[in-house]
Amino acid sequence: MSKIKVGIVGGTGYTGVELLRLLVPHPNVDVIALTSRTEAGRPVAELYPNLRGHCNLAFSDPSGPEIADCDIVFFATPHNVAMQTVPDMIASGQRVVDLSADFRLRDAAQWSSWYGEPHAASDLLAEAVYGLPERNRESIAKARLVACAGCYPTAVQLGFLPLLEAGLIDSNSLIANAASGASGAGRQAKVDNLLTEITDSVKAYGVAGHRHLPEIEQELAVAAGGPVKLTFVPHLLPTIRGIHATLYATITGDCDDLQALFEHRYANEAFVDVLPKGLYPQTRSVRGSNTCRIAVERPQNRDTVVVMSVIDNLVKGASGQAIQCMNIMLGLPEFTGLNGIALMP
Amino acid sequence: MSKIKVGIVGGTGYTGVELLRLLVPHPNVDVIALTSRTEAGRPVAELYPNLRGHCNLAFSDPSGPEIADCDIVFFATPHNVAMQTVPDMIASGQRVVDLSADFRLRDAAQWSSWYGEPHAASDLLAEAVYGLPERNRESIAKARLVACAGCYPTAVQLGFLPLLEAGLIDSNSLIANAASGASGAGRQAKVDNLLTEITDSVKAYGVAGHRHLPEIEQELAVAAGGPVKLTFVPHLLPTIRGIHATLYATITGDCDDLQALFEHRYANEAFVDVLPKGLYPQTRSVRGSNTCRIAVERPQNRDTVVVMSVIDNLVKGASGQAIQCMNIMLGLPEFTGLNGIALMP
Amino acid sequence: MSKIKVGIVGGTGYTGVELLRLLVPHPNVDVIALTSRTEAGRPVAELYPNLRGHCNLAFSDPSGPEIADCDIVFFATPHNVAMQTVPDMIASGQRVVDLSADFRLRDAAQWSSWYGEPHAASDLLAEAVYGLPERNRESIAKARLVACAGCYPTAVQLGFLPLLEAGLIDSNSLIANAASGASGAGRQAKVDNLLTEITDSVKAYGVAGHRHLPEIEQELAVAAGGPVKLTFVPHLLPTIRGIHATLYATITGDCDDLQALFEHRYANEAFVDVLPKGLYPQTRSVRGSNTCRIAVERPQNRDTVVVMSVIDNLVKGASGQAIQCMNIMLGLPEFTGLNGIALMP
Amino acid sequence: MSKIKVGIVGGTGYTGVELLRLLVPHPNVDVIALTSRTEAGRPVAELYPNLRGHCNLAFSDPSGPEIADCDIVFFATPHNVAMQTVPDMIASGQRVVDLSADFRLRDAAQWSSWYGEPHAASDLLAEAVYGLPERNRESIAKARLVACAGCYPTAVQLGFLPLLEAGLIDSNSLIANAASGASGAGRQAKVDNLLTEITDSVKAYGVAGHRHLPEIEQELAVAAGGPVKLTFVPHLLPTIRGIHATLYATITGDCDDLQALFEHRYANEAFVDVLPKGLYPQTRSVRGSNTCRIAVERPQNRDTVVVMSVIDNLVKGASGQAIQCMNIMLGLPEFTGLNGIALMP
Repeated sequence: MSKIKVGIVGGTGYTGVELLRLLVPHPNVDVIALTSRTEAGRPVAELYPNLRGHCNLAFSDPSGPEIADCDIVFFATPHNVAMQTVPDMIASGQRVVDLSADFRLRDAAQWSSWYGEPHAASDLLAEAVYGLPERNRESIAKARLVACAGCYPTAVQLGFLPLLEAGLIDSNSLIANAASGASGAGRQAKVDNLLTEITDSVKAYGVAGHRHLPEIEQELAVAAGGPVKLTFVPHLLPTIRGIHATLYATITGDCDDLQALFEHRYANEAFVDVLPKGLYPQTRSVRGSNTCRIAVERPQNRDTVVVMSVIDNLVKGASGQAIQCMNIMLGLPEFTGLNGIALMP
Repeated sequence: MSKIKVGIVGGTGYTGVELLRLLVPHPNVDVIALTSRTEAGRPVAELYPNLRGHCNLAFSDPSGPEIADCDIVFFATPHNVAMQTVPDMIASGQRVVDLSADFRLRDAAQWSSWYGEPHAASDLLAEAVYGLPERNRESIAKARLVACAGCYPTAVQLGFLPLLEAGLIDSNSLIANAASGASGAGRQAKVDNLLTEITDSVKAYGVAGHRHLPEIEQELAVAAGGPVKLTFVPHLLPTIRGIHATLYATITGDCDDLQALFEHRYANEAFVDVLPKGLYPQTRSVRGSNTCRIAVERPQNRDTVVVMSVIDNLVKGASGQAIQCMNIMLGLPEFTGLNGIALMP
Repeated sequence: MSKIKVGIVGGTGYTGVELLRLLVPHPNVDVIALTSRTEAGRPVAELYPNLRGHCNLAFSDPSGPEIADCDIVFFATPHNVAMQTVPDMIASGQRVVDLSADFRLRDAAQWSSWYGEPHAASDLLAEAVYGLPERNRESIAKARLVACAGCYPTAVQLGFLPLLEAGLIDSNSLIANAASGASGAGRQAKVDNLLTEITDSVKAYGVAGHRHLPEIEQELAVAAGGPVKLTFVPHLLPTIRGIHATLYATITGDCDDLQALFEHRYANEAFVDVLPKGLYPQTRSVRGSNTCRIAVERPQNRDTVVVMSVIDNLVKGASGQAIQCMNIMLGLPEFTGLNGIALMP
Repeated sequence: MSKIKVGIVGGTGYTGVELLRLLVPHPNVDVIALTSRTEAGRPVAELYPNLRGHCNLAFSDPSGPEIADCDIVFFATPHNVAMQTVPDMIASGQRVVDLSADFRLRDAAQWSSWYGEPHAASDLLAEAVYGLPERNRESIAKARLVACAGCYPTAVQLGFLPLLEAGLIDSNSLIANAASGASGAGRQAKVDNLLTEITDSVKAYGVAGHRHLPEIEQELAVAAGGPVKLTFVPHLLPTIRGIHATLYATITGDCDDLQALFEHRYANEAFVDVLPKGLYPQTRSVRGSNTCRIAVERPQNRDTVVVMSVIDNLVKGASGQAIQCMNIMLGLPEFTGLNGIALMP
């Protein structure tokens, strides 16, 4: 079988290089294009020396012809980029996996209010499939446009889903205390992300309102079959990778065995690993892998259930999940190219 | 005025060396004894080279005569040590500041159930004053025995106090999501605390039940004037120092201005700094200092209030707080020897 | 072709789990045994959760029958273990790849003086092949017993080899200033390796004499065709993985183009990457990969040449190199199972 | 005695805030001015929350009147700033302590070749006193303009001085392998200094030629009484603070007891601590303090001597040393305001 031609728009960021780390050895695809406005002409291995000897691609200009030749195009761009060009790509028969936030919200007005500008392709919002395979596998398979779930939203949703789908918790008072490594902020020259500013420290941010909040509430509402209210507090960790979400909810239904509930829900999921009772996940156990590890606990047997959920924000929270979606779109086994073992220690 | 003679029992751990860092330059005390069963005879500066040139003390055996000569004795020991010898010290007229957990719970049976052994000095539990100056300043001044508040309990209580004292929140569904640097685990040779095991990672632990839970619930109940139920989830951070507590509560009372509530509550506290509205604390901003920095937020103006509270677990969470208590016991200004500025970056 | 049966003696340490990470997906081998005296019966994925879903092996007792069934046995043990049982294995027709120091020195007396005990299998020292493929590929192919090069020795030798083989430097005054991440110290419960003791800090150690010194001098002497004197100063870095060796030598021969010398020497080596002139290697660029990246510089065009050489101490410095040796012993392409791309960021 | 009025030009960087941390509690000075072009009007405690409650200063514009009122002015600026305005300050009777590189080299042409622009105040180069108190105490006392020694130069010179002053080593083949925490690169928005780019990694930089090289050679030549050739290789460490210099030299003279040589040389120096034989310094042992800790070793009793020297780059390598110089200029005890104990752990 001939290989699928794949392109990456916006390849200088961390999700871009992570797509390459995973796609270059992927047996069914050829990455033929990698764009960057600022680095056009420069070999990607110059920017990311880990790719030396593995990838000879040079960045090309986004306006060049290379991308037009691709069967599938990944967008590893900041928001407000994909929505400018995706409509034309879809129209010309290409399929798109967007890692950015452009097509995650179904309501254009809501998108505008959180991102501060009008949506440039609101016609596509209804069609875009939310790229969380553990919820939307069938729709992803047929999708022309997949809007990959965000990093925090992936960790938070996978933790809440078993409880909400089973109607066991009060969906009106959910709490997600989440923490991310610094790669979540991308590869941007900002004082706030210097090692000297954030190592050996921790802080909350975006407490008054983070852009991942509406995305999580929107999707959890579907799972819950009704409105969801979430208090979402992200924190910045002095690590490179990793998201740890600690979730709290009030139990309102009957459940003798939360552990079994979680194990059943994810029994057939290749990338969700429910830990044995009493063990809690560490972010390092998923470093570089596409796995989400989850534990559930009911402290003191009181009314509050606690779920811990960890992912690598650059893999299951971004590039790995995008490739998982691509595999589904192509009818490949979901774990193709994604079965690398996490780096530990 | 002649200097107060001070001794430290159990000086090899991190709270021990931190007591020395702060007490050696303290203008009103002389540290004359420092004990260690395992290191007796060894100069402390050999173990902690930062003390070279500042402190010539050598460890002495706990059974030796040096401690008996002290006016005030600090216990920087694991639990189950202080309660063996404190009764005799009190009887002989010495005053004790215990940094361990031995005298923090008022109920001996509860202590036994959490610490797995009978309490050896339950007679003193009623007399021991809980060492959180922002609550118990007057009692500390007269105390013979102060049981210093634990590290997590300090950060959590200072965050909840304004809300509970004002009766604004549901005391039955409190949540404390807290995270500590690795020095909180002490200086013990354990695989779990190796750099290779915990750096570049984060995890929750003790979710089913942590020993700081009953201490926090006991003290918050006093502030609330009734029973308190807390879900307490501690996490291990890849940092040396620092506790970040993110607190969640359901607002049940009326309050137009949470910011003002917090600012008023701590207006006269030298070591509690309420940040301007919209700013959130970083643990590094208190590194090495006795300050607790706090912020309060009500996301989306919904029913859940979020409080962020940071301390240096070895200072305001242990040795600094112990010295603050000592200053109060001696009638000195509380900040004597404690006005060092945090190290940043 | 049926798969080769492989066993690992001493699988609880970091080189053990790293062998598993690389061998489990290896297409030509089956890991059928993994021993540990202390953890016998326990699933390895309990100790190393990154292996959950990838490896169902449980530790077995070293005295059990499993190891006897293996075609090739890896020793991932501290020194003084392999030499006790390797002679019997070799006698019974098994081939051995020893990651420990037991068979690296050819002189039993020298071994004894550095390791403080008599050598238990000195008869095998002459036969053991030093496992640095870039020097000894042909001998490794036929070897019954390979003594894998140590971590520092690998980085240091690969850096000096082009210069020494070409006779360009004074072999009597070599300097290797090397630094290693904490995983080089293994997974041992020692206060010295706690995060609190070594993060945000750096120190030299073993300056008066480190056990890797005689190994490096022995092998470089072969390359130089005469005695070699090295000053070797290792340092401990606050990182998990990675060795950075900065090498200094006095140029005594003529060489117009050091860059070309290095590029030629390693032109056919899959795992040695000479960087373009003016670029210097970062340890993160080899994190998790079997690559050694090297740069050479002659500052101010004076007489001192500087070589920088980085490896992942657990991969090219241990488990990856052992598998590279195994591939050679089995006649497989050297990069089989070893072409993973380094994790960056 | 009335307090000395002190100003800081360029207060937004890490050496600026570190000057404040040390000067605010200093008993003999008042910081009355703190300038920043970009942050004029903003309270410094907004930028550096560790100063909240300790320092009410706001940044003022450098062209404002505040600086003119100061008795002593510190420059905590990048190079090429101080030399523009220092001549006028000196002319008007102010004394200047420059932490930048502007007045460290005595040869204007050499300065130009390393810094890429003409020197704007070459007339002052002859008068400027090189601010390394352990060499130039008497000149500093009388100086109008002190050019503080750089961070690497301080660690390297203090390590080599005893050997060079005693004529024991070949001054023609010195090697300084040095490594610095990321604060040495300042508080600049650069991708290269992001946590994601440099944590859990190490690299060399500036190998072909670093600006600290001519400064070190110039000053060591004075100590050696003749020309000095140094190979200087700096490395970037994944730490906030700390410089570790590992120095190598060939012994050419007779010395039975290198340990005694170092101890004698620094017997009267408050801020240089020669460790007992066999102990090596860690950077954390000087974190936040003005101390330089040194060890000397002669491995295998061969011809190469190894010196290890550690400082906190922001204290003894910058702001602490500047204050030490100021104390000397004012006739105060050198340790005034500088006797804080390093933060450990």
